[in-house]
Amino acid sequence: MPLQPRRTVEELRELQELTGDENGAQRVAWTETWEQAREWLRGKVAKTGAEESVDAAGNQWFTVRGGSDQAVLIGGHIDSVPNGGWLDGALNVMAGVEVLRRIAEDGTAPVTVRLVNWADEEGARFGRSLFGSSAAAGSMADQDELRLRKDANGTALPDALREHGVDLDSALDARGELEGAAGYLELHIEQGPVLESMALPLGVVLGTFGVERHQVTFRGQAAHAGSTPMDKRRDALAGAARLELEIREIAKRTGEGAVCTMGGVVTKPGIVTSVVETAECLLDQRHLDATELASMLEEAKRASEEFARQEEIEVEWDRIWNIEPILFDEGLIELADESIREVAGSSQRLPSGPLHDAAEVARAGVPTVMLFVQSLRGLSHTKLEDTKEEHLELSVQALDRLASKTIDRVAAS
Amino acid sequence: MPLQPRRTVEELRELQELTGDENGAQRVAWTETWEQAREWLRGKVAKTGAEESVDAAGNQWFTVRGGSDQAVLIGGHIDSVPNGGWLDGALNVMAGVEVLRRIAEDGTAPVTVRLVNWADEEGARFGRSLFGSSAAAGSMADQDELRLRKDANGTALPDALREHGVDLDSALDARGELEGAAGYLELHIEQGPVLESMALPLGVVLGTFGVERHQVTFRGQAAHAGSTPMDKRRDALAGAARLELEIREIAKRTGEGAVCTMGGVVTKPGIVTSVVETAECLLDQRHLDATELASMLEEAKRASEEFARQEEIEVEWDRIWNIEPILFDEGLIELADESIREVAGSSQRLPSGPLHDAAEVARAGVPTVMLFVQSLRGLSHTKLEDTKEEHLELSVQALDRLASKTIDRVAAS
Repeated sequence: MPLQPRRTVEELRELQELTGDENGAQRVAWTETWEQAREWLRGKVAKTGAEESVDAAGNQWFTVRGGSDQAVLIGGHIDSVPNGGWLDGALNVMAGVEVLRRIAEDGTAPVTVRLVNWADEEGARFGRSLFGSSAAAGSMADQDELRLRKDANGTALPDALREHGVDLDSALDARGELEGAAGYLELHIEQGPVLESMALPLGVVLGTFGVERHQVTFRGQAAHAGSTPMDKRRDALAGAARLELEIREIAKRTGEGAVCTMGGVVTKPGIVTSVVETAECLLDQRHLDATELASMLEEAKRASEEFARQEEIEVEWDRIWNIEPILFDEGLIELADESIREVAGSSQRLPSGPLHDAAEVARAGVPTVMLFVQSLRGLSHTKLEDTKEEHLELSVQALDRLASKTIDRVAAS
Repeated sequence: MPLQPRRTVEELRELQELTGDENGAQRVAWTETWEQAREWLRGKVAKTGAEESVDAAGNQWFTVRGGSDQAVLIGGHIDSVPNGGWLDGALNVMAGVEVLRRIAEDGTAPVTVRLVNWADEEGARFGRSLFGSSAAAGSMADQDELRLRKDANGTALPDALREHGVDLDSALDARGELEGAAGYLELHIEQGPVLESMALPLGVVLGTFGVERHQVTFRGQAAHAGSTPMDKRRDALAGAARLELEIREIAKRTGEGAVCTMGGVVTKPGIVTSVVETAECLLDQRHLDATELASMLEEAKRASEEFARQEEIEVEWDRIWNIEPILFDEGLIELADESIREVAGSSQRLPSGPLHDAAEVARAGVPTVMLFVQSLRGLSHTKLEDTKEEHLELSVQALDRLASKTIDRVAAS
């Protein structure tokens, strides 16, 4: 039987019916509803004859053995945020199921093909995203810290994991799963407005952005709003305002793919009768190129220092978090481009702002690529998340072609 | 006996010893400590032979009858904020006591002279400043609202007033006290940096600023900081930042005496991974000239609308509070200038940013003027509030001269 992309859409609706409610998807990892979704998935895949296994980090694997132990992996995550959308994570899994069906029905493939349903991509319950994929990639380095994490009800992370058969102390044993992996493919909704604005259904992801995230604190002097002349003020908010406007110029100068965001400002004392003494700004900068990212950060720092000097205030930078850009495999990017052009006429290359499990797999050295399908209005993590059905069907076709081409390439290597 | 300005400084220290602690002055109106300060003041004035009376709003009056019922008033307030300074309010009262002593000892003056200790200038306990002076001025229009006010412990304002012999319903009977008032004089610390920066001990106050206070809300669109290209953002913070910088230009263009302050910004969702959807700004604009103030407000509104248009966001203005400028009496300003020049060599005219009881008296039609004495570092409402002792002594001398000149002018009119 040939590929039935329509079936993927129907199965996604079925999953939403089973595990969502009027507020959206409720498949939060390490909950009963999530377990129910995994059980449902098990039933869907069973008919293909794929072997199921759950690794030490709770990742659910379905393996169709081929002519070689070298494996092409297709990955996604069935977990969602609370009140989430019907596509984020689940599309990848269900499109993978359809591709697995086609491959299994075609008879023995030259290489092994595995579908993985990563455990806890979202980190919605314990605030630790990419749990399963980082364990498999061997990059989970925060187990001591994770041991202390609690959810909103006070349940400790290790206890919640244990209820689902996972022992935090041995989660890194999942590393063995990537042995023999020769390619990793992931389809995801874009979660942004780029493809929609270009009226394109599909795009190839070049990699995930490097991120520099800082708290930038300007410190001036509180002073009476009525009795302090303008030229005697040391206004911390002026520093914040100038930086907010400057980061847009920095992103513009840096060019395509650069984004800078001041996501929030906290002003103290923050009352109408006082000049602002302290302005704490949250700054997020992203780029696919590590050198460009470093230069954007340097420019923002230099600008903030110049503003502080001119305004006679102080500025201090504290790094909140950072990650290097993670680039996908050039060969697979070519194959993904071809696949998209075959099913949709034209393709577009774009970076991914959000992180994905694919980034962890790529970090582990497995050649990786992602496909993005258009998101309506760029919305995700809400029940309003949506994608046109014809685009979803095209995305399943593109993933299927990409899988075929990747299998052929691996087999020929 | 001649005027003894040194005695004023000593009595202020005595008052601080009696009613302050290691955190500063604690003479909050409608408390035991405040009542104790009023009792102490009563004792200080008794020796002058002035008649004491307490009016329907709780204001404490000391009257030295003269050759006419026309009266020159000297006013201040002995109440402070919690953890307040030793001078704000009390300097005026104690300098007035010293002037009253001198006048009483000189023998019958041509006109009546009255010292008034206004009740609850600060509004520290119930958030309603200028209580006693607004009742006497007949401008207290918010009694229905005041009836519902409670302090932090849940005590209702009318109950607290009753404990100090004041019935809120008849507080406006205090209006009778301003009958026959032909001049009102008030000395106050500047609470700002202007005189200190000019190395001048004393200045004449031209009036109190008109104030326009608004919440300005910019509304854009929350969007993922990683997946939303710069040119697809509708960033509410950009509107706030541009307005913060523009209000400084507006004040500069308007010229001397104009102040504009963005005292706080609240950003929502206010997280590092999202473009700001809503930025709520607190805007305070002040000027001594009503036309200039209206034009500053208009300029800020127009600018905000232009920024909103350019940024494809929305802007909304909500008035929090406003008050007209209140100008002091030109003749008394001349006399105050002369008095200051006589004791300190040179004088300076300046507006008052903060409101004072004098503004209420002026609004009631009584010719009014204020003297400012230099504040160190512009600080007030803190135990760090201070003024050089030699400047305090000069201020008592200047008030005394101003009282003499005003009495002569009223007597001659």
